[in-house]
Amino acid sequence: MQAQPLGVFDSGVGGLTVVRAIRRALPAESLEYLGDTARLPYGSKSPETVARYSLACARFLLGRGVKLLVVACNTASAHALGPLRAAFSVPVIGAVEPGAKSALAATRSGRVGVLGTLGTIRSGAYEAALAALDAGVRVSVHACPLLVPLAEEGWTDDEITRAIARRYLGELAAKDPAIDTIVLGCTHYPILAPVLERVAAEVFGRELRLVDSATAMAAEVAAVLAATGGATQAGGTGRLACHVTDASRIDELAPRFLGEPLAAHDLVELAL
Amino acid sequence: MQAQPLGVFDSGVGGLTVVRAIRRALPAESLEYLGDTARLPYGSKSPETVARYSLACARFLLGRGVKLLVVACNTASAHALGPLRAAFSVPVIGAVEPGAKSALAATRSGRVGVLGTLGTIRSGAYEAALAALDAGVRVSVHACPLLVPLAEEGWTDDEITRAIARRYLGELAAKDPAIDTIVLGCTHYPILAPVLERVAAEVFGRELRLVDSATAMAAEVAAVLAATGGATQAGGTGRLACHVTDASRIDELAPRFLGEPLAAHDLVELAL
Repeated sequence: MQAQPLGVFDSGVGGLTVVRAIRRALPAESLEYLGDTARLPYGSKSPETVARYSLACARFLLGRGVKLLVVACNTASAHALGPLRAAFSVPVIGAVEPGAKSALAATRSGRVGVLGTLGTIRSGAYEAALAALDAGVRVSVHACPLLVPLAEEGWTDDEITRAIARRYLGELAAKDPAIDTIVLGCTHYPILAPVLERVAAEVFGRELRLVDSATAMAAEVAAVLAATGGATQAGGTGRLACHVTDASRIDELAPRFLGEPLAAHDLVELAL
Repeated sequence: MQAQPLGVFDSGVGGLTVVRAIRRALPAESLEYLGDTARLPYGSKSPETVARYSLACARFLLGRGVKLLVVACNTASAHALGPLRAAFSVPVIGAVEPGAKSALAATRSGRVGVLGTLGTIRSGAYEAALAALDAGVRVSVHACPLLVPLAEEGWTDDEITRAIARRYLGELAAKDPAIDTIVLGCTHYPILAPVLERVAAEVFGRELRLVDSATAMAAEVAAVLAATGGATQAGGTGRLACHVTDASRIDELAPRFLGEPLAAHDLVELAL
């Protein structure tokens, strides 16, 4: 098992932000990444559709012999973690609980905000995860449907992006002006973090802490591998294999999230 | 054949703008509509994926006994019209040629602009269709990836939408400031027509004509039915059956495009 790769999937290329964090924490581990780019986004679709797609992604990665499954997509984590854990025997790590833990580690006021897709926000997954970890924390959530297309358009430092961030963060501040920590509850959002951070300071009138799931997910992967004796014994740098269901714009978008050029990718077809 | 319904498909609910035009022109015809909402959008995906999805949509509608197929989605029309016509014996009407005809009927200067999805613009389909109809027309095209999410967010009369329209139309005007007619080359864009019209007047310094494919497509459906003797002989109002592959947000979004409440929809699963 130690020599087997880790499996990571996402609706698209945003999950490469999680791959980046895992490779930083566990450079020797090999990774199999699957981006379901032919059916993205998951964030606007129903829980049933997202669960069905997630199971298909997981079956593909299990077929590649992965020893552990990382659900990089927050929407898939919100809708499909239960079905995935029931269906497969490998450890399954989602995005929501690590994001909630990061928020609790960061907050001083116990007032946390969460930004996410429509699907993630409507699921109530972050409220549930935070309440389970600390019943005293107060959580305010807000759906931000335009942030993913803005990140993909590459308008990361742009007056239009600032205007949209001002709208969304203003609506969040209206729900709770005492928030001191915001969870970026979608794998696309970390590349908008600088603009969100500046606009949040302006809207709330003070510095806020922005956290995402990626670093906490990598820490959880490391902890599970240590606890199960599953970490690779090989030295050097592990291999990264990237599979996508649609190749359109991968060469353009993937490096933005991975933080380095993507050596190669291959095109795969998933079962319904 | 006369009693059979017409079939219309789109990647989502935007194609209901075409249904609306067909029902206005041909109220007695029954319609089977399919929105592939579980796999939308098509506009950012590869020609191969879009063609594969389009064939699956068409097979579903043919299975419902449609006498004619309308490809409401511009991206699907750009990538899949040839394969669809080769695969099926019913008449197939796309969005691009009717849109091109509408533009030629409207332009005085012979300088036409086209706004569309990445897929439609990269396909070159509008340039080809316009050149085939009139070799003298000059065509400038521009991809507008944020317009679909803005239309779905419902920000149709909004300062942010105006700022984004100003950006895209400014980039189009830089390509050809003499444009007098703009084709809205995506089924989502007609609900942004008022803001696009106002901003175009501001950017170009004069009124422009905005045309879309819907009315011209309805006229082409009427012409084909007349030529083939396929029009229904029934009076009254035809039936509209709406099928979707994901039910999320249909009740909220469909009326915006159809212009009236949607009586009902059912959820279907398509083959790969």
